[in-house]
Amino acid sequence: MKNTLLKHKQWRGKIITKVVPLLKTKEHLSIAYSPGVADPVLEIARDKSLAYDYTWKGHTIAVVSDGSAILGLGNLGAEASLPVMEGKAALFKVFGGVDAIPIVLDTQDTEEIIKIVKAIAPGFGGINLEDISAPRCVEIERRLQAELDIPVFHDDQHGTAIVVCAALINGCRLSGKKLSDLKVVVNGAGAAGSSIIKMIHSLGVNEIQAFKRDGIIHNSKLGKYDFLTKELCEIVNPQQKLLSLEEAFVGADVFIGVSVADCVTESMVTSMNKDAMVFALANPNPEIPYDLAKKAGARMVGTGRSDYPNQINNVLAFPGLFKGALNVRAKAITESMKIAAAQGIASCISDDELTDEYLVPSPFDPRVALAVARAVEDEVNNIKK
Amino acid sequence: MKNTLLKHKQWRGKIITKVVPLLKTKEHLSIAYSPGVADPVLEIARDKSLAYDYTWKGHTIAVVSDGSAILGLGNLGAEASLPVMEGKAALFKVFGGVDAIPIVLDTQDTEEIIKIVKAIAPGFGGINLEDISAPRCVEIERRLQAELDIPVFHDDQHGTAIVVCAALINGCRLSGKKLSDLKVVVNGAGAAGSSIIKMIHSLGVNEIQAFKRDGIIHNSKLGKYDFLTKELCEIVNPQQKLLSLEEAFVGADVFIGVSVADCVTESMVTSMNKDAMVFALANPNPEIPYDLAKKAGARMVGTGRSDYPNQINNVLAFPGLFKGALNVRAKAITESMKIAAAQGIASCISDDELTDEYLVPSPFDPRVALAVARAVEDEVNNIKK
Repeated sequence: MKNTLLKHKQWRGKIITKVVPLLKTKEHLSIAYSPGVADPVLEIARDKSLAYDYTWKGHTIAVVSDGSAILGLGNLGAEASLPVMEGKAALFKVFGGVDAIPIVLDTQDTEEIIKIVKAIAPGFGGINLEDISAPRCVEIERRLQAELDIPVFHDDQHGTAIVVCAALINGCRLSGKKLSDLKVVVNGAGAAGSSIIKMIHSLGVNEIQAFKRDGIIHNSKLGKYDFLTKELCEIVNPQQKLLSLEEAFVGADVFIGVSVADCVTESMVTSMNKDAMVFALANPNPEIPYDLAKKAGARMVGTGRSDYPNQINNVLAFPGLFKGALNVRAKAITESMKIAAAQGIASCISDDELTDEYLVPSPFDPRVALAVARAVEDEVNNIKK
Repeated sequence: MKNTLLKHKQWRGKIITKVVPLLKTKEHLSIAYSPGVADPVLEIARDKSLAYDYTWKGHTIAVVSDGSAILGLGNLGAEASLPVMEGKAALFKVFGGVDAIPIVLDTQDTEEIIKIVKAIAPGFGGINLEDISAPRCVEIERRLQAELDIPVFHDDQHGTAIVVCAALINGCRLSGKKLSDLKVVVNGAGAAGSSIIKMIHSLGVNEIQAFKRDGIIHNSKLGKYDFLTKELCEIVNPQQKLLSLEEAFVGADVFIGVSVADCVTESMVTSMNKDAMVFALANPNPEIPYDLAKKAGARMVGTGRSDYPNQINNVLAFPGLFKGALNVRAKAITESMKIAAAQGIASCISDDELTDEYLVPSPFDPRVALAVARAVEDEVNNIKK
């Protein structure tokens, strides 16, 4: 603890600015500033889209938080969220070459946040929302994406979902199972769980059982559900079974946990289908420890931890996703772009390299962001055609 | 024109981000991001002021515009203002070592702008407002400074005022005149002119005649004046004279123009007191050209132009002012800090160096920002004592 505080004190922030043009002489100033800057000003006034050509808009995003759900620490406010947003901005740059600016907001009012982000949007090529509490985060993201013409992405919802999909794709590659034949159990259906459920459904998975604190998601409880869970009812539990989590595990091919530590037992894993995949993503302690899940018979196991194989780390997704989106001046992040990102991550591992312990690439694999960006660009360009 | 557009296209923005911590290994990530970042988060949640220690807040400001008064070009909107704000941010870094982030707003509603800037303020150590139309800019600056606990500064109002004051101080050093004996004529009493009038009054100048488009500022017109001009009535025209601009020139020691090109004639300058100072700051064409003013008998002449001596360039003021304010974690930019900045600029020229043609240092003189910062810091520290 002392060490992390000391380091943060030495850094005094994780991002500084660097000036692009040389500004050493009167002549330099007269081009980059007054009077020369009037030329790009007038061009952009004529056609706003030229901001991508003449300003930082084409490679710069805002990382926006209201500090209402900082990491697992809770609602600690704008200032306290700043070290996390700076860290996120640093990851965008290091892993994706994307310039990212932390913006922390001293309001937690949904309508005000939407208004503010819309107001600052002209100066950015994209908006990454971060650490905003559920279910407000879903409304904020959807409203902003509907009302802005730049990509808006809430990483806490979709970042993990993209990487889980990549792991699932590669797990199927390895075991020969088809996505459409999988029986999947998801525990946790908040902001991240909902996005996971929607993405694996988009990928072609038909049978999904999803669990919340009050048990399996089932139409009989529709009246009690919030809008997010209601949406899931159209996707999950096709035969409207009323199962316990334990019962749902029997014969399942995949378990995905975004819930709480140690809620899954060895016997539950043992009851799964052969070549079972377990993605236990509760942090820092997973739903079942990696070693126990393997011992209980799961063939492929992933967690959120960097000290075990198959770390489901969203840094594999967001830098390349925004890099690709910016490269093609995308107007939104769509479901198909997220799927493309998952396929991009999965494609980084060749058939020769792919093993039970190597379903997703290392966060430090330099090929990943490029592969993700290219997959996203191709997807956008295909749709444009 | 082609060259400036081409350059802007090559740069694609004038600011990029640079990452401070090394992020090459799992261990690096675990300190700068999860889980280590939780430590500074919790510290700042306990005491917000620690954001100055653990984040970029202590060296980073926002450069905010609504694009309502871009340079001399007019109301061209948020996107079009971005090349200017990027340029300003670059100047802050190059000249003052201050990290500055351009934020352009897609609203021109005064209350909304105030709300938005207040909301994003926790992530910054200061706010530089820029290219916001008068008189809204005055209200926005005052309200923000009253309601925020970080420095707020509208450069278009006060930047020029600080540098004019520096020139005035050095003009008096050179001619032996006392500030309290000066008769000063100011033409133009908008946002910049008002600030100049208030600052020279704070410096000790007693006799100021100020002119607007409808003539001399005089209590008989009080009913027609906006709040800014009403405030000036308490400072200017102590004997309530009703003079034309031409009449006011007779015997004056100083003329300061922030008005329009060519509104001052040679004979007006010739009618001034001996050792006259003429600061003709209309841009790009001054109230009277440099050479004509000299020929007409002015001893010291300054303009906004870089191709003549004594360029009154606000880049002499704002980088050092914010550098000093950030260094002492100032909670506001006060009148006394602006005066200190002017004295800091003036002090860069030694008695040996000081001449009629060298009243203010070159914008590229590396001593200036340091001297300004130190003067501002001393002022704040003296008040604290």
